[in-house]
Amino acid sequence: MLSREDNERACRIGPGTPMGNLFREYWLPALLSSELPAPDADPVRVLLLGEKLIAFRDTNGGVGLLANNCPHRGASLFFGRNEECGLRCVYHGWKFDPAGNCIDMPNEPAESDFRTKVKATAYPTQERGGIVWAYLGPRPEPPPLPDIEATALPAETLSVGAVQRECNWLQALEGDIDTSHFGFLHFGATDPESVEPDTFQFYTLKDRSPRYAVLDADYGATYGAYRPAQPGLLYWRIAHFLFPCWTMIPTGVLGLQKIARAWVPMDDEHTMFFTVSPKPAVDPDHARPYPRKIPLVGPLLPNTSDWYGRFRLANNPTNDYHIDRGMQRRGEDYTGIRGIFDQDQAVTESMGPVYDRSTEHLGSSDAMVIRVRRRLLGAADELAAHGTVPYSVDHPAVYRQRSGGVFLPEGADWWAATAALRTAYLDHPELDPTLARL
Amino acid sequence: MLSREDNERACRIGPGTPMGNLFREYWLPALLSSELPAPDADPVRVLLLGEKLIAFRDTNGGVGLLANNCPHRGASLFFGRNEECGLRCVYHGWKFDPAGNCIDMPNEPAESDFRTKVKATAYPTQERGGIVWAYLGPRPEPPPLPDIEATALPAETLSVGAVQRECNWLQALEGDIDTSHFGFLHFGATDPESVEPDTFQFYTLKDRSPRYAVLDADYGATYGAYRPAQPGLLYWRIAHFLFPCWTMIPTGVLGLQKIARAWVPMDDEHTMFFTVSPKPAVDPDHARPYPRKIPLVGPLLPNTSDWYGRFRLANNPTNDYHIDRGMQRRGEDYTGIRGIFDQDQAVTESMGPVYDRSTEHLGSSDAMVIRVRRRLLGAADELAAHGTVPYSVDHPAVYRQRSGGVFLPEGADWWAATAALRTAYLDHPELDPTLARL
Amino acid sequence: MLSREDNERACRIGPGTPMGNLFREYWLPALLSSELPAPDADPVRVLLLGEKLIAFRDTNGGVGLLANNCPHRGASLFFGRNEECGLRCVYHGWKFDPAGNCIDMPNEPAESDFRTKVKATAYPTQERGGIVWAYLGPRPEPPPLPDIEATALPAETLSVGAVQRECNWLQALEGDIDTSHFGFLHFGATDPESVEPDTFQFYTLKDRSPRYAVLDADYGATYGAYRPAQPGLLYWRIAHFLFPCWTMIPTGVLGLQKIARAWVPMDDEHTMFFTVSPKPAVDPDHARPYPRKIPLVGPLLPNTSDWYGRFRLANNPTNDYHIDRGMQRRGEDYTGIRGIFDQDQAVTESMGPVYDRSTEHLGSSDAMVIRVRRRLLGAADELAAHGTVPYSVDHPAVYRQRSGGVFLPEGADWWAATAALRTAYLDHPELDPTLARL
Repeated sequence: MLSREDNERACRIGPGTPMGNLFREYWLPALLSSELPAPDADPVRVLLLGEKLIAFRDTNGGVGLLANNCPHRGASLFFGRNEECGLRCVYHGWKFDPAGNCIDMPNEPAESDFRTKVKATAYPTQERGGIVWAYLGPRPEPPPLPDIEATALPAETLSVGAVQRECNWLQALEGDIDTSHFGFLHFGATDPESVEPDTFQFYTLKDRSPRYAVLDADYGATYGAYRPAQPGLLYWRIAHFLFPCWTMIPTGVLGLQKIARAWVPMDDEHTMFFTVSPKPAVDPDHARPYPRKIPLVGPLLPNTSDWYGRFRLANNPTNDYHIDRGMQRRGEDYTGIRGIFDQDQAVTESMGPVYDRSTEHLGSSDAMVIRVRRRLLGAADELAAHGTVPYSVDHPAVYRQRSGGVFLPEGADWWAATAALRTAYLDHPELDPTLARL
Repeated sequence: MLSREDNERACRIGPGTPMGNLFREYWLPALLSSELPAPDADPVRVLLLGEKLIAFRDTNGGVGLLANNCPHRGASLFFGRNEECGLRCVYHGWKFDPAGNCIDMPNEPAESDFRTKVKATAYPTQERGGIVWAYLGPRPEPPPLPDIEATALPAETLSVGAVQRECNWLQALEGDIDTSHFGFLHFGATDPESVEPDTFQFYTLKDRSPRYAVLDADYGATYGAYRPAQPGLLYWRIAHFLFPCWTMIPTGVLGLQKIARAWVPMDDEHTMFFTVSPKPAVDPDHARPYPRKIPLVGPLLPNTSDWYGRFRLANNPTNDYHIDRGMQRRGEDYTGIRGIFDQDQAVTESMGPVYDRSTEHLGSSDAMVIRVRRRLLGAADELAAHGTVPYSVDHPAVYRQRSGGVFLPEGADWWAATAALRTAYLDHPELDPTLARL
Repeated sequence: MLSREDNERACRIGPGTPMGNLFREYWLPALLSSELPAPDADPVRVLLLGEKLIAFRDTNGGVGLLANNCPHRGASLFFGRNEECGLRCVYHGWKFDPAGNCIDMPNEPAESDFRTKVKATAYPTQERGGIVWAYLGPRPEPPPLPDIEATALPAETLSVGAVQRECNWLQALEGDIDTSHFGFLHFGATDPESVEPDTFQFYTLKDRSPRYAVLDADYGATYGAYRPAQPGLLYWRIAHFLFPCWTMIPTGVLGLQKIARAWVPMDDEHTMFFTVSPKPAVDPDHARPYPRKIPLVGPLLPNTSDWYGRFRLANNPTNDYHIDRGMQRRGEDYTGIRGIFDQDQAVTESMGPVYDRSTEHLGSSDAMVIRVRRRLLGAADELAAHGTVPYSVDHPAVYRQRSGGVFLPEGADWWAATAALRTAYLDHPELDPTLARL
């Protein structure tokens, strides 16, 4: 439970807010590289941390990210002409490069130097892992990119996606560090006896109330959810929160799985969820993690050009996610909502645009949710009170983590026993990928 | 005329407001029984006194009414599985009975007693007269249901309806205690010579500016609107306001007519209008109260599942009620809006979402409107200042009233002369039902 | 650049605001005469200076403009019956003449004089130049109409139009006193060598960065934008701002052109743009000012009866003005938006509903924008502080101005040299109309 005051401080991310300032210390995913398909392609509206921005790929292939309103008299640069290494406002022809310099001001006399005094708000960008990252922070020289393994692999080997969620970022992220919902929201109607025995999924469905260990780390926090597996063994699902809004989920095999997800605030009531992982292996049996009946994600609507038009799902609040009560009743699916992502959207969006945490009741299964709020609020408060920048900002190596499942003997020190498995960029040829069908 | 301050106090009904507290002392219609057609049917979103609630009929046939947000972490119980005597949240499987007890918490360890510490906000319900009533008040043991005759008749003999009005409840209710609009809004284009002579309708149209007597009563207030009828007689239309939001209209024969209407706030800007009366008698001539050209109520849109989706009229503010100016000009109808209810909707909704009473000019025909505001504000203030609960809360018998028209000799004491006729549950075989064609 | 405080004071025009009070000293265009096509035609919703009004043409042909809400109990007079020299509210039949007098109150007893105590808020109107003008000001006797030549010509000789702009009036007006955008927004893709040499348009496109002279006048302010023309000559474009929201643009031949445009606030976030000029001459070559490919204004949507339903363009914010990026890239048009007016709508609407002027950067080309803000704020402040009514309110003759282009010798005193040409109601048979193809 959070007081109204703490809730506001945890959720709001606009300019000048404590959490907004914390976010701005970091590089953040802004859009997918594929949304700017070629040099001089059409500009795109991007809403990020409550700021209206225009993204464009210039003639040299670099990405500019400028404030929406032209610094002259405020016309939107969305209509701008993307030409010859800059974006030219169509009102009076003022042209800006990706750094925001005004490189042409053709409606003023040629001898005027006024253009040297005008700069468009521009945020540095770089591309990696199929994502355009942006830095909205205060430093003239941005910090390094976080060394998140999935985002560092060659872009052509990656599956990169984005989905818009119509609610505040924090309740969306909390859903992603909440492994116990797996046995209800997504697989509440699945009988463990119907899945392959001795797999991670088998034990996840046999015992739907795991216990938890949680601890802090430089990158954020980690939880291990454990439950009985084969005699003498426990099945551990180990997952991470990484500053300021990343998660690594515990579904695969710890040591093999490479995945990262970011819950990036568009504004206080909308979030862009980015997910990055290597393209699946060719073997269809190992490549099909979900029961055939429910897709991982339902169909997307075509993108539209408005501020909230990117990556909306067809199953959304306006149609109650096309919930099928018949499926619910017949036990074919727990929710009747046809899509794993869509099920997450339904429960988190329905909390309200900015979830009011003053009347909730948290159980032992919420240990990680509680811990992450504390880490986030603590970091935001430290920054506000003392200017302390979190360690992770300047130490990209702390992001070299992996998440996933593992069998450990009862009584083992889970943290020590998994040190190598949790370390990115290591190979583990001895591990069996078939343990995880999810 | 009400000051801004008094207007706010009279209109606003959310939790903690003075008028909201007054409403909460009473059982209120929440939805129609028919909206929950069978045990374990789909849940329904119900907005009541500004609170978002989920209604469901459990396996035993009883109706639960729970706060929308699960007390765990706020997911909407609308998506819940209605099964085996409870509603189970699809997020983590927490299950609640209609009393709000958490009867299963399957994602927590079996030995945990945490579920005994968690309760969903749940309001008691009961069904009567085809209506699901709810009590949102402070007492552990609710008061009795008001003994409103129409709602106490066997449900299968009743015609029960609901229509949503897109404005505050008070301006909607005021329209229902304002008999003089009858001769204009609804029947301004009807020539009295065109209706059957010596009926109530005949005299209502011959003299469109009745005079008024108004008085307080335990149940609320009553008015008698009177005008000349046959020589030596006056035609009295007697109608009631009953706490907190009921009306009994004066259209039929006093002593025969059984009708009740409730103006139940959904929130400050939307009202659900419930109407209950016995199904009409078989005789079509007596059963057709309105001129053939104008229906009692225009067509309803199909219900949708959103918070404002129940019982909307097809003639509504988005289409100016399909007003037909040609009909207006040709004298076929006063308004050109095809529906008696729809005409009321147009004039009350167009006052604004919450009508600003600071610039109005009330005439003698508004005597009852003035009186009812005083009763309501007085009762709300007494409750706020002294905790005084109105007499009607604990004395259901005060609701045993009837309304309607009667011919009385000039000079008669109307109140004394109609005592028996105004008393519910009495038969009056001597009365002539054909006097009222409305 | 304006501080937040000055910006609010410059933009907001509701009742009681400083700028709203300034506007209310003047007659303003409220709607087109053609919107009330005949006596007793349907009423029309008109939003003006943030006030919701109902316009109707009574049986005698005069136009009434009443506050939307009936003074009885607030029902909208939009549904009123327009009959027999008044508008009759359909709720209780109260009838009002165009002066707001209650001339019938049929639901009150005949002997009652209550109707003499009730008056509907009514604003005087008069018609001239195809426009219905309204006076929302404090004087019992309104001032005279401004003697704007275009509006004083016989209505049947005029082309009068209205277009709704979805933004605050001031940023819309500023776009109309900003001649340098002409060479970019509208004609940035037009090569001067492709137009007829030695015309105004030719020189406008050859030199897209004119210099400016600006000065105050009784009617408001004037600018002259000048650039080289034939050897020894300068091409001057002379245009005016006239209190409180009029512009005369510099596109035609000074001394021949008669045109006036008003940027009338509907409310703080919507503006009705009125434009008046004589119908074009028959000769199609001179009558076609714009390159054939781009129309002056794109198609209008059919009017709807809601408050924001009048004169909306099909190219609007919901569809990004149907911008054609292909046209943009191929150099067929600078913006890719197909309509001169539509291009202006795009850049001014995209500034935001009420443009925030605290971060802008104004150049020498914005000299007139800066001057007009000062004139407006100064006049509003003088009225607020000292009750000083601007000179132009009571001196209609100051509006007898013309605007347009002229060639003058370098070094000429432009103001003195154009005195006769800038004076309305004079003939100049010596002037060559073919100089201006715009």
